[in-house]
Amino acid sequence: MRTVDPEANESRRRAILDAAARCFAAAGFRATRTAEICAAAGMSAGNMFHYFPTKHAVLCALVEREGEQADVWLEELRSAADPFLALTAFLATICELAADPMVAGLALESSAIAHRDEVVAELLRANDAALRDGVADLVARARDAGQISAPMSAESAATWIAALVDGVFARRAVQPEFRPADEAQALLTIVSRVLGRTETR
Amino acid sequence: MRTVDPEANESRRRAILDAAARCFAAAGFRATRTAEICAAAGMSAGNMFHYFPTKHAVLCALVEREGEQADVWLEELRSAADPFLALTAFLATICELAADPMVAGLALESSAIAHRDEVVAELLRANDAALRDGVADLVARARDAGQISAPMSAESAATWIAALVDGVFARRAVQPEFRPADEAQALLTIVSRVLGRTETR
Repeated sequence: MRTVDPEANESRRRAILDAAARCFAAAGFRATRTAEICAAAGMSAGNMFHYFPTKHAVLCALVEREGEQADVWLEELRSAADPFLALTAFLATICELAADPMVAGLALESSAIAHRDEVVAELLRANDAALRDGVADLVARARDAGQISAPMSAESAATWIAALVDGVFARRAVQPEFRPADEAQALLTIVSRVLGRTETR
Repeated sequence: MRTVDPEANESRRRAILDAAARCFAAAGFRATRTAEICAAAGMSAGNMFHYFPTKHAVLCALVEREGEQADVWLEELRSAADPFLALTAFLATICELAADPMVAGLALESSAIAHRDEVVAELLRANDAALRDGVADLVARARDAGQISAPMSAESAATWIAALVDGVFARRAVQPEFRPADEAQALLTIVSRVLGRTETR
């Protein structure tokens, strides 16, 4: 009798998702054939279907995995001793992620697909809501600690920080000379002004 | 001999573009058939091809027309006596436009298509560059008039204002409770802070 090794199974799923992320970012979801994902994952064509029923399910699993990774990251930020420093780290990491062609390519591809795909759109909305929750928590804690004057609600501040993050990714597509890696300080300055950062050492 | 009436020709082209904008915003570029555009424009199927060689050419003409309309608008703003007031009007109009399902739907659709279509992407980049030029001009004039302290360059300020505009449109897709029409004041407050608005009457 054949037994399933859960670890090997999980490792195969991970390899497929990693391969699919590269393919979708480079060639796009529609143009990528499942055989190409299998080849990029180092497995024979058709093998993917033991793990995911469709290419669409692979995309959904990728977006869900991004949400899970963001949850782990946000949980770390929430537990940081200095909330404004955690917010600073958040913004710096966003710029690093947006500078990565694979991450940015996949994010822009997911958004483009989501525009006409309600299932993917719903997954992206859930990820976005979790991100805003995490940021709102940091803003509220920074305000309670007297680090910012925050004249708007923590939720509004989180919404506008999310809008700036949208903008950092969108600029890549529309403004070729915009380099997210060089813009982390500018983004921090802007967010500091929006939040009314108290001038301290 | 049949003569072409340039005015009737132009009016037909405009009717096709208006109809295509509605179709693309509602159903998407890919899902829209040219016969549907003709029906929406009140002309018989196939008639569109007297004016545009392909559906893709219609989309490109739509994006170009948006750019021309924005140029007229920006020219008006440039000639305004009070540059900060002109910037305020710009931001309010952006929120109005983003609140319009047709405008926002078409903007998000164009961006989604542009992600895998270099011709559309290039047209959007040209529109974006013109928009940033206009905004940078207003920022520089507001700074020269002492209305703002603008610690960043006018070009950087215009880039980040453009990023916020990206965000206003993107929020619609990802955050259903975000209503651009209700956010004009918040956007103005944020831009005022970013630019270091001098407190005046």
